[in-house]
Amino acid sequence: MNAEIIAVGTELLLGQILNTNAAYLSRELAEMGIDCYYQTVVGDNQKRLEEVMRHSERRSDIHIFIGGLGPTKDDLTKETLSAYLNVPLVTDDGAAEKVIRFYRNLDRKMTENNWKQAQVLKDSTVLKNTTGLAAGTYLEKEGHLYILLPGPPSELKPMFENEVKPLLLAESTEESVMVSRVLRFFGIGESTLASKLNDLIEQQTNPTIATYAGDHEVTVRLTAKGTTEKSCQALIDSLEKEIQFRVGEFLYGYGENNRLANEVKQLLIEKRLQITAAESLTGGAFQSELASVSGVSECFAGGIVTYSHTIKEDVLGVSSDTIERYGVVSADCAIEMAEKARDLFQATIGISFTGAAGPSSLEGELPGSVWIGFSMKGKPSFAKHYRFAKDRNNNRKRAVLSGLDLIRRVLLDLPLSNKVTSEK
Amino acid sequence: MNAEIIAVGTELLLGQILNTNAAYLSRELAEMGIDCYYQTVVGDNQKRLEEVMRHSERRSDIHIFIGGLGPTKDDLTKETLSAYLNVPLVTDDGAAEKVIRFYRNLDRKMTENNWKQAQVLKDSTVLKNTTGLAAGTYLEKEGHLYILLPGPPSELKPMFENEVKPLLLAESTEESVMVSRVLRFFGIGESTLASKLNDLIEQQTNPTIATYAGDHEVTVRLTAKGTTEKSCQALIDSLEKEIQFRVGEFLYGYGENNRLANEVKQLLIEKRLQITAAESLTGGAFQSELASVSGVSECFAGGIVTYSHTIKEDVLGVSSDTIERYGVVSADCAIEMAEKARDLFQATIGISFTGAAGPSSLEGELPGSVWIGFSMKGKPSFAKHYRFAKDRNNNRKRAVLSGLDLIRRVLLDLPLSNKVTSEK
Repeated sequence: MNAEIIAVGTELLLGQILNTNAAYLSRELAEMGIDCYYQTVVGDNQKRLEEVMRHSERRSDIHIFIGGLGPTKDDLTKETLSAYLNVPLVTDDGAAEKVIRFYRNLDRKMTENNWKQAQVLKDSTVLKNTTGLAAGTYLEKEGHLYILLPGPPSELKPMFENEVKPLLLAESTEESVMVSRVLRFFGIGESTLASKLNDLIEQQTNPTIATYAGDHEVTVRLTAKGTTEKSCQALIDSLEKEIQFRVGEFLYGYGENNRLANEVKQLLIEKRLQITAAESLTGGAFQSELASVSGVSECFAGGIVTYSHTIKEDVLGVSSDTIERYGVVSADCAIEMAEKARDLFQATIGISFTGAAGPSSLEGELPGSVWIGFSMKGKPSFAKHYRFAKDRNNNRKRAVLSGLDLIRRVLLDLPLSNKVTSEK
Repeated sequence: MNAEIIAVGTELLLGQILNTNAAYLSRELAEMGIDCYYQTVVGDNQKRLEEVMRHSERRSDIHIFIGGLGPTKDDLTKETLSAYLNVPLVTDDGAAEKVIRFYRNLDRKMTENNWKQAQVLKDSTVLKNTTGLAAGTYLEKEGHLYILLPGPPSELKPMFENEVKPLLLAESTEESVMVSRVLRFFGIGESTLASKLNDLIEQQTNPTIATYAGDHEVTVRLTAKGTTEKSCQALIDSLEKEIQFRVGEFLYGYGENNRLANEVKQLLIEKRLQITAAESLTGGAFQSELASVSGVSECFAGGIVTYSHTIKEDVLGVSSDTIERYGVVSADCAIEMAEKARDLFQATIGISFTGAAGPSSLEGELPGSVWIGFSMKGKPSFAKHYRFAKDRNNNRKRAVLSGLDLIRRVLLDLPLSNKVTSEK
């Protein structure tokens, strides 16, 4: 079975929005082992949409339409497919009730158009929309499968995940259960990771392995098919064990929407530690990233941004001697910043960031040259040097994530190369 | 003339990358008045690509191919089009020289495949690639126009902008100069802005007006066609004047990659002011946003993150009386934070952020309830209340941008509604 994705909407053809739906569905289909050979975008135009349907019918088995299920006169996907297939539209009672309730709650009068959202193709399976009004449609006809999904990603994703996927799985295989696990890595590039897992990737059948390069990190998605959830999990467990053995130190967490800051927050709370920071080139970005996670107040009370020499000295208390002798882009300055921050903010861990963000050099150091200082109650302080060599804001972002990863590694007793320990 | 965009690449069909090129080109074409009725994505497969070419030829005049110009055996756009149109491939001397130089500099041996990047369709206009190796092709044949562009956006965009656009403009009209200006707005929603400009948008011919909803802001792109750059600028000036008259207070700057922080930095430097911040719910995000702009050290030396009550009191010096009496989500606390930060960091302006980021409420205040405090040398301090009602990180982001906009408005003497002035 192969699929074709057809997104309907003039706003896509004007470049006003990105076709993120097509990428999402393509990824999901690939994971299920369904080939997708074409993605098409066509405007809100009956004639052209019909032409696209004709082409799709000739070359694909599954036709997934995105968008055009709404109440306005521009929304004509259902109407066009109904005419094309000669299958009438009928009102779905469940969806209609939802529409009525929605307008009653808003205390607004319904127009004739609003009913459109409750219409589906006759004899189809109605796909429930838990986050919006327009019902989806799943219709099998003469060896073809027609799936109609709403355009907003917040409606399309749950509908695909909860309604379409189980139907498609039941259709395509006897192994009707599919389980995915997302492994998140930091500190290793996609190509290095892929080369370390090369034989596993080459041999993959079940589970499948897919690597994705994300924003300064890499995710690996393991997907198993089976007859029960338990058997799928067992297959994934065993593959993950092998991956852990090879690149385990870079694996920081699990899940599609997880982030390094969240894992570090958890570790700090579990170990009942309080963290603070003194930030120069990152300018508050480390603390902001930490504070992006809810519940962070249990391990974070505050910190300081010391952008200038004066603030480093006068407010934080770094000695002018250190700055004069070693400069601010130095292990000594980084260590002193971390220690002084820990004193000032009464924390168990202090971390600091000092270096050249770019575009200019600082103290003769090229952009991307960064020292991260680390101070922890009862342990010798140290600093670690990094060379990022990207643009200003990527250097800053990379420094923040490297700081989080450094904390993770210290708390989990993982290796730290290239450390400079203070002599104090 | 109407165009069709055909992106070639299996990674798109696997959902590994987003088709940002199609959105970019669609936007550019729309601006030039060229209709784009279809976008297609097809894999690295000769047979299927040829089929797509056949469909495109039947329904469109301009065929823009993206990707598949590289050196690997998967790259087959040129080869397929060459066979389809029966136009041979020839080596372009300029492009070949670039390839040779590239490998010589790398001290790496060239393989036969590397030559592929210098090949173009015979009798076509060669499109120079200033940021990569693969040459582009612009071929007119029997009333059709075939344009071949490289896949990486960093190569595609300059090639389209500098090479394709002038050719297309010369093709489609006698007014061969086109000038765009991007106006950036904060604090006004896209629909409100559109309704205020409704008559202008409805009447638009030259210049055209397009509004885009961005990340917490709205941009308006004005595009004029004419015979000279000067006449285009004059047309845009006159339209912008009308827009300024209607919604000028929300217009904060110009340009595709500009941001509010940059404009605020400029204003601060022009007026020789130093800023500092005390951040609670934003957790350093305001200072980080400011520090994302290079050259910020001229107006920013540092600031503090006061996430907990204790740090607000012990390090920043907010009186426990204020916190006990009014709570931290209050005008009084916000004003005191801004004033104390100004003292501690010796700045002319102090700004503060305190409120409930979410997901939980704080002191009975719903997520998104935020006070921003403002203190400036020689002026009465004040605080302003905001209600954002989005999720945690959108509330935080929104607070940061609202803080920047507040500074902008103060420095430009623009209206500030809803101000609470301290009695001190």
